[in-house]
Amino acid sequence: MNFCSNCGAPVISKIPEGDHRARFVCESCGTVHYQNPLLVLGCVPQWQDKILLCRRAIEPRRGFWTMPAGFMENGETLQAAAARECHEEALATVDIGSLLAVVNVTHAHQVHVMFRARLLEPSYAPGPESLEVVLCAESEVPWDALAFPSVEFTLRRYFADRAAGREDHHFTELLRPLPRP
Amino acid sequence: MNFCSNCGAPVISKIPEGDHRARFVCESCGTVHYQNPLLVLGCVPQWQDKILLCRRAIEPRRGFWTMPAGFMENGETLQAAAARECHEEALATVDIGSLLAVVNVTHAHQVHVMFRARLLEPSYAPGPESLEVVLCAESEVPWDALAFPSVEFTLRRYFADRAAGREDHHFTELLRPLPRP
Repeated sequence: MNFCSNCGAPVISKIPEGDHRARFVCESCGTVHYQNPLLVLGCVPQWQDKILLCRRAIEPRRGFWTMPAGFMENGETLQAAAARECHEEALATVDIGSLLAVVNVTHAHQVHVMFRARLLEPSYAPGPESLEVVLCAESEVPWDALAFPSVEFTLRRYFADRAAGREDHHFTELLRPLPRP
Repeated sequence: MNFCSNCGAPVISKIPEGDHRARFVCESCGTVHYQNPLLVLGCVPQWQDKILLCRRAIEPRRGFWTMPAGFMENGETLQAAAARECHEEALATVDIGSLLAVVNVTHAHQVHVMFRARLLEPSYAPGPESLEVVLCAESEVPWDALAFPSVEFTLRRYFADRAAGREDHHFTELLRPLPRP
């Protein structure tokens, strides 16, 4: 951030009075510009014993696999965001179910929230952000080609809970980015 | 938003190519400025059969009661944010427990996430954003003077679960702001 989005003057980084953290502050109009974590919403869509995965058509991690997920928008619920992302990335319609995983991606200033979901019909196809969409059994999951650690965490917990007949929710924290290739 | 925080040029509102929503876009440097929901984190700190409530010293809803809660910061987990807010607003130290409530405050572009918590010692006092901090029994909760609908939702579910010996989590959506006084 270089300029004030309110008045257009340059901002400086300083700790505002009564605060405890450096913020971007406009000394012209007085606006304090807070920067806060972003929510990424997704789901694991299930059809019979298979789940829906997408191969990413965009960076980061183009060509790698993920469940449908993306940034939550203003005006929607967590569940609506997860269903919308599934529709955009996999052209698939789901019923959102129970909470599955909450991944604090602290290094990236993101919180990933993943739900279980049920495909309403076995109809799907790649949206503009996907190269490929597949229904795959647990034995077919491309564990070595997943896009992000939060995807692996979510899928491991999904299958473990399914095997145990449970629908728990699971928290974790990811402190480091993926190593650069 | 009036100006580009990257280059300082005026922004316009338009739907970027490949997008489906209007965004603030800088036609000078090309930056698209996304606006996304904010996370508000809090907890219901418990000591014996009582819970800790704070009376707000700041607007909105100055003078009304809430559990300790506030905006999540970059670099922290949901649980760390909830514990920090309790320390700032009530000068109290807690162990964060199970997930209690997730309130989609869609009209305000916020998601409120509330945990159960345990006070480590019965030591508390108002921080700068609180007028008063009290430990109160269920029969003493000021139901008619709570600050926000998300506070009431969270506390109702807390006491219902406690009476039933459960620790469930609960979702809801709040579509409308409080009526103006």
